[in-house]
Amino acid sequence: MPDREEIIAKLRATLDPERFEHSLRSEKIALALAKKYHVDQQSAATAALLHDCARRWDRPGLLKQARQLGLTIDPIRKLEPKLFHGEIGAWLARHEFGVRSADILAAIANHTTGRPKMSKLEKVIYLADHIEEGRDFAGVGKLRKLAFKDMDRAIFESTSAVIGWLAQKGLPLYLPSVETRNYYLLALDK
Amino acid sequence: MPDREEIIAKLRATLDPERFEHSLRSEKIALALAKKYHVDQQSAATAALLHDCARRWDRPGLLKQARQLGLTIDPIRKLEPKLFHGEIGAWLARHEFGVRSADILAAIANHTTGRPKMSKLEKVIYLADHIEEGRDFAGVGKLRKLAFKDMDRAIFESTSAVIGWLAQKGLPLYLPSVETRNYYLLALDK
Repeated sequence: MPDREEIIAKLRATLDPERFEHSLRSEKIALALAKKYHVDQQSAATAALLHDCARRWDRPGLLKQARQLGLTIDPIRKLEPKLFHGEIGAWLARHEFGVRSADILAAIANHTTGRPKMSKLEKVIYLADHIEEGRDFAGVGKLRKLAFKDMDRAIFESTSAVIGWLAQKGLPLYLPSVETRNYYLLALDK
Repeated sequence: MPDREEIIAKLRATLDPERFEHSLRSEKIALALAKKYHVDQQSAATAALLHDCARRWDRPGLLKQARQLGLTIDPIRKLEPKLFHGEIGAWLARHEFGVRSADILAAIANHTTGRPKMSKLEKVIYLADHIEEGRDFAGVGKLRKLAFKDMDRAIFESTSAVIGWLAQKGLPLYLPSVETRNYYLLALDK
């Protein structure tokens, strides 16, 4: 597992200040969620700190990296290359930061859209990204409380908010986000 | 092609009055759209009148019909059996109303979610259902005007509104709706 100070030094050098602060705030709430749900603290901190490490690149840079790594260049991700940053971040976490844990790498790879059947660590990172204390959208306070009560329901509410927002803004909507929402909607129904 | 009076008599006998009136209003605007976009008038009228013919059944009835017809019972449609009414309606149009045209049957089958690469008739029916004069939602006036200027853009706006609404209401979101939106989003981008 890479050393926290080393990660932070590298993030500070590669991310813009706002993104860097978001990573620290995500770590803070990920640690609180991890404590609540009995998830390994160091895994939660490492995944949260690194979840946006690929945001050092802008859209054209992300698309270029995606091509170099041989990721599938589907039309929606070509239109919105930010959708590659989870997968590229997992690659960076492995090859630049030396993360070996498959669960941490999955949490980084899947934090943008989520996925059905997430591990507890993946859920913690997905939610931490959405509810860290710098986030400010209608309902975020309610969502923060819910995340500490029922992660599955919080994920459903969170995907609903994101999808609703993207749809109304006319922005690309990536199918995996909807698959995640449907999975957690069906889980609530049981 | 079945006779209009015959269709209307059967719809009046099987649909509730509100649904029946919606079908007539859909026919009216479908005819106007068909005229604008040079689509066969009788096809547009027949498809619009019949698009909701399977709404004679409630949710449990639709699920039962879907099973009898051997449709795929995926978890989202099991949760929201109204998502079957297009396909079941196309079956009824063929076997009860005697419609032979594959384009009309496709327009009925696909009117709920739309699909990528719709025919002009399918677009007319998809939009007529959303913008008929009884519809009253934020932006419907703008959407009505847009439908007569650019059907593809109107379909994108319409799917965006529907998806945004379903997401925010916590209702099931069927992937084909999102595939339709993505297709027409990418078409705009070209």
